Amino acid sequence: MLTKEEITHWFKLLQDNICNSLEVADGDSTFSEDCWERAEGGGGRTRIIQKGKVIEKGGVAYSAVHGRIPQFLKSELQTNNQELETFYATGVSIVIHPISPMVPIIHMNIRYFETDGNIKWFGGGIDLTPHYIDEADARFFHHYLKKVCDKFDVNYYTDFKKLADDYFFIKHRNETRGIGGIFFDHLKPDKDRTAEQLFEFVKAIGECFVPIYTHFMNKNKLIAYGDSEKEWQLIRRGRYVEFNLVYDRGTKFGLETNGRIESILMSLPQMASWTYNYKPTPNSAEEKTLALLKKDVNWVL
Amino acid sequence: MLTKEEITHWFKLLQDNICNSLEVADGDSTFSEDCWERAEGGGGRTRIIQKGKVIEKGGVAYSAVHGRIPQFLKSELQTNNQELETFYATGVSIVIHPISPMVPIIHMNIRYFETDGNIKWFGGGIDLTPHYIDEADARFFHHYLKKVCDKFDVNYYTDFKKLADDYFFIKHRNETRGIGGIFFDHLKPDKDRTAEQLFEFVKAIGECFVPIYTHFMNKNKLIAYGDSEKEWQLIRRGRYVEFNLVYDRGTKFGLETNGRIESILMSLPQMASWTYNYKPTPNSAEEKTLALLKKDVNWVL
Repeated sequence: MLTKEEITHWFKLLQDNICNSLEVADGDSTFSEDCWERAEGGGGRTRIIQKGKVIEKGGVAYSAVHGRIPQFLKSELQTNNQELETFYATGVSIVIHPISPMVPIIHMNIRYFETDGNIKWFGGGIDLTPHYIDEADARFFHHYLKKVCDKFDVNYYTDFKKLADDYFFIKHRNETRGIGGIFFDHLKPDKDRTAEQLFEFVKAIGECFVPIYTHFMNKNKLIAYGDSEKEWQLIRRGRYVEFNLVYDRGTKFGLETNGRIESILMSLPQMASWTYNYKPTPNSAEEKTLALLKKDVNWVL
Repeated sequence: MLTKEEITHWFKLLQDNICNSLEVADGDSTFSEDCWERAEGGGGRTRIIQKGKVIEKGGVAYSAVHGRIPQFLKSELQTNNQELETFYATGVSIVIHPISPMVPIIHMNIRYFETDGNIKWFGGGIDLTPHYIDEADARFFHHYLKKVCDKFDVNYYTDFKKLADDYFFIKHRNETRGIGGIFFDHLKPDKDRTAEQLFEFVKAIGECFVPIYTHFMNKNKLIAYGDSEKEWQLIRRGRYVEFNLVYDRGTKFGLETNGRIESILMSLPQMASWTYNYKPTPNSAEEKTLALLKKDVNWVL
């Protein structure tokens, strides 16, 4: 039977593999590590890469925390079982902000949660935030995810792509954060699928991070850009900050539970900007990108 | 009897006066104006100054909105009067981000709210966020506010200074946003004080903005600084962004009520940064400032 130790072990290895691959693809900077402990139980390994040749600031975080279930989590659990006492949660979370505005920002997260009452589920997602949307890149990304999803369930890609569109949405801007990807939560074993099978799916998502992102790093780092592209990148990063601080559930959860603040906010870019009432030039690449920052774009036609 | 028209008229004049004075003190850039209307009733005049000689980005906004009371506001009103139907709210709101890290960020807001059920109150506040805390400047600021408050009520300064310390607090950083100031809300006429008297107090607060901030602009713009001070400024601005997006009630209110987004987020700086796990050098000016970013510092001893 699948144990939390097995999942935890695999998550740690994934963090190692991703950090190694990103260091190779960056070709200059390396990760530094901060290990931390949570007073109520458990802890994590936060790894940060800064001032690289391709990556300006990136974090690959692993954590495994446990303890008594806080009251606000009980309502999240949607259960009346008052006997639930302890929980265990482990996950790997990544955000990479590249130097070049031509290389997209990427985010990936996979997580596992269980309680002593035998509630268990997986969650996760991967989404891409290009500063400039290249339609071929967007199709590559979504086709890749669809191929992985299709191996497990023909509905996964469609269902989880829709969840990503809904989740990574900046309501007050009426814009998506980027071109979406997939997002899933509370994925529980049921009559159709065992915990082992769900874990295989989650592993497949975790494993697609390196080939996808190193593809974009290697290819797009060669594209030339100038000051106006850099300016636009800083504005898009400002929107990324808005999403993470106003809407992101992981960030809110961390802030509300007194998590380690530097690990929670490692997702924020080195530099971001806000220009009052910025309007892109008509027919510019910036305007074209803005027009594609919406839900329900089909990238796998 | 004091009418909402009288208050509204005065708020508009205050916006004019503050903009004129800031243009003179900046000496280079001028305000541009965007007038907007709210579909449900009312509107505003947002004025923005950018790329000045002293001010990098600043906004002075006036608005007066009215309409049916939204449900979420009824609970805020703490009343069971189901007959309340319409509200009227007007205010002036300011945030100034200077170019120099030696000139403080300032925020000021005054507002008036009433309903057809004859509920009426004033709210407001003014607080200072120096990138580097100069203790003499901090004392000047608080003494100035205390002198204004003392003319109206000997308890105002102490009470409202405490409210500002509590309000302008970045819980997840365990830091205050800056050196505080005063903050008040739901200031209602009662047996001790008429609406006219409260309005006089609010006017006095509105009128102290120009002498206070032009004092700091004129004096501190002359102080030399280098790259490391600029870097610290960007980090402190990052904290300002965190406060405004995570905690600020005005921002939340605006986002939740589909307010004009560019007016709501005019408070964000042109540029801000986040460095992972930044620690100031021991005994540096940055460390000294951090040590003073806490509640209950007495600046009027």
